[in-house]
Amino acid sequence: MLQASSPSKSESRDGGTNPIACNPLDDYLALCKDACDGEIDRLYGADARGSNGLYDLILDYPMRGGKALRPALSIATCLGLGGHLEAILPTAATLELYHNAFLIHDDIEDESWWRRGKPTLHIDHGVPIAVNVGDAMLSLSLQPLLDNVERVGLGPALRILRAVAKMTRLTVDGQALELEWVRSNTWWLGDADYLKMVELKTSWYSFITPLQAGAIAAGAGPERLAPLEALGRHLGAAFQITDDLLNLRADPEEYGKEIGGDLWEGKRTLMLLHTLRSADPTDRDRAVQLLAKRRPSTDGELGLTQLLDRLTAHGQLSQPGRAEIEARLKGHHPSESKTLNDIRWLYELMHRVGSLKHAREIAAQQAREAAIVLAGLDWLPCSRHRDALAALVDYVHGRTR
Amino acid sequence: MLQASSPSKSESRDGGTNPIACNPLDDYLALCKDACDGEIDRLYGADARGSNGLYDLILDYPMRGGKALRPALSIATCLGLGGHLEAILPTAATLELYHNAFLIHDDIEDESWWRRGKPTLHIDHGVPIAVNVGDAMLSLSLQPLLDNVERVGLGPALRILRAVAKMTRLTVDGQALELEWVRSNTWWLGDADYLKMVELKTSWYSFITPLQAGAIAAGAGPERLAPLEALGRHLGAAFQITDDLLNLRADPEEYGKEIGGDLWEGKRTLMLLHTLRSADPTDRDRAVQLLAKRRPSTDGELGLTQLLDRLTAHGQLSQPGRAEIEARLKGHHPSESKTLNDIRWLYELMHRVGSLKHAREIAAQQAREAAIVLAGLDWLPCSRHRDALAALVDYVHGRTR
Repeated sequence: MLQASSPSKSESRDGGTNPIACNPLDDYLALCKDACDGEIDRLYGADARGSNGLYDLILDYPMRGGKALRPALSIATCLGLGGHLEAILPTAATLELYHNAFLIHDDIEDESWWRRGKPTLHIDHGVPIAVNVGDAMLSLSLQPLLDNVERVGLGPALRILRAVAKMTRLTVDGQALELEWVRSNTWWLGDADYLKMVELKTSWYSFITPLQAGAIAAGAGPERLAPLEALGRHLGAAFQITDDLLNLRADPEEYGKEIGGDLWEGKRTLMLLHTLRSADPTDRDRAVQLLAKRRPSTDGELGLTQLLDRLTAHGQLSQPGRAEIEARLKGHHPSESKTLNDIRWLYELMHRVGSLKHAREIAAQQAREAAIVLAGLDWLPCSRHRDALAALVDYVHGRTR
Repeated sequence: MLQASSPSKSESRDGGTNPIACNPLDDYLALCKDACDGEIDRLYGADARGSNGLYDLILDYPMRGGKALRPALSIATCLGLGGHLEAILPTAATLELYHNAFLIHDDIEDESWWRRGKPTLHIDHGVPIAVNVGDAMLSLSLQPLLDNVERVGLGPALRILRAVAKMTRLTVDGQALELEWVRSNTWWLGDADYLKMVELKTSWYSFITPLQAGAIAAGAGPERLAPLEALGRHLGAAFQITDDLLNLRADPEEYGKEIGGDLWEGKRTLMLLHTLRSADPTDRDRAVQLLAKRRPSTDGELGLTQLLDRLTAHGQLSQPGRAEIEARLKGHHPSESKTLNDIRWLYELMHRVGSLKHAREIAAQQAREAAIVLAGLDWLPCSRHRDALAALVDYVHGRTR
């Protein structure tokens, strides 16, 4: 366990970095992930619920790996403030389950095919099951948070519940903002608009609330929450911009997502918004036009078009017959879809107007801000837990390099 | 408002039935629905959140009408026990929002096209938006339940939260059970299996928890919860069996769902399970075979088949070309789909072996049990609220006639 294998509190507080491990952060994250996986299994595994299709699927995404950043943020803050692992573990596991529920539903919404080195849940089991599994994970999150009353006392338990309620509200607000941009076809947005959306949609549930819950579970007072909010906001922005940059170029085996999926999807990223602000009017208009095209669907329509081409060429299908079939298919897919050439052109435009460089600069700036906030937390004693938080700031941003 | 327009408590308690209205239950339900709609609008409407695509969609299903049975159960129990409308209204609205979130996601999972006289949300706005809206509704439910602390006091607020946590857990268990039957292709199930699944999947969130939350908000002690659980369990069973019977034969304009959707979907209803137990082996085997066929998809493949027929008949498409197109389409829909004749044959078999009669009898028996439990609640004084609960027992079951 994390607490048992770590140096004692008195040792670690004056100690600083871990002298043994080659990569202390990786070790720390692995310990947190183990502890969190164990807790998820305790709460929802076969022993708790009996082996059963739905509960097996609840464990699918969490057990696929992933860094478990969120539990690590909660655990490091709690232990760094002198709290106990048991005080934060159920909450950390619950927040991780929340995150995985969002991932399952996001994968449906974004029509993603790949997640952590495997097909997404809805590709493997169909959309109905994937919707259901995500709902189950969201629905099951209330009980462990209520059980906090016995674990950390009534006051802290209620404060954690309130923090989670605020988190879900703001996350929904962020999703609403993003959907509204899509619905109203809004592309003329500045860095500040993007950062606000990311704060709402990502930073609260991935960074701010995990940090704050860790502090509350350790018995920290309400005055500690504001600096942790600032830390989480900057960390979240650095993380999300880095994530979006990775999406453009990463190896899907390592990164676990398809390359360029954000461009196919037309997601409003910091760099794409910068491109639209910076490109000359002709390029900008063309970019907006391309982005308005839908993503090709997964039902193999492209294969069908090629087949129809071939049948027509070989005289097995008349021109009017072909037109009728295409009209019928178009009835279900009324608009033109993006092509690989569209995506390539968009990527080159982004590169040409300096959007990738701009995004890397903003990510670095946000990581610097996070480091400054963390350095100013004089009420968080030196320990391997504080070191882990500092290393996380670098890690979150360093993924770009 | 419900309380203002009702007779004073002293009048109503010795009064019994409402002497003025032609149909007191309809009036009562309408008042509850108004109050609940107003509360949902207060919590999530444009004034609270600003006009915005996502929040507009959150209000879509709740504002389409529907009977608002769940809020009525909460309100009648609370007011019937001398509680105040304000004490229960946010909880009632939250449970109604939960229900509507499940409806949105169920409609995706069941591929339903029609809900309360309009196209389902995912048909109108696409699956991604519909998943998102349902998630938002589930996520937003925590805040009003936490705000209960200020409204009804800490103890009752925590008891309501615990009741809701239990409700969501058991609802997920019910969904898990039903999915497991589908996954393992289990059809050999008795009435008791069906009733257990319905208790978990439907009765808790639609009946038991609304009743119990109403009692807790009125300050009732823990000893009141067990009889309300029994009442809700029987009510839920009578309701669900009736709902399944209506699905087979109702007018969709009035009922708001497509006719026979359950059969297309292969849903395990009390009558279908009875049919499989009662039919002779040949019919049973055929029924299981038909039920294993998938539901035709919504992408208009049937229309396409007819088109291909016509093109082939008129010599515009060669036989080999047609076979290739069909093979390509089948690649995406590998299994055969149910036909209207399959559904007709299943329906006639159900009728022939007496399954509809059997289901009506079980529904009537469950309604009688509910009435007996309600009659035994000597701590619930006579009032229009108690009368409304009694009328609801009849209503829930009477919909079959």
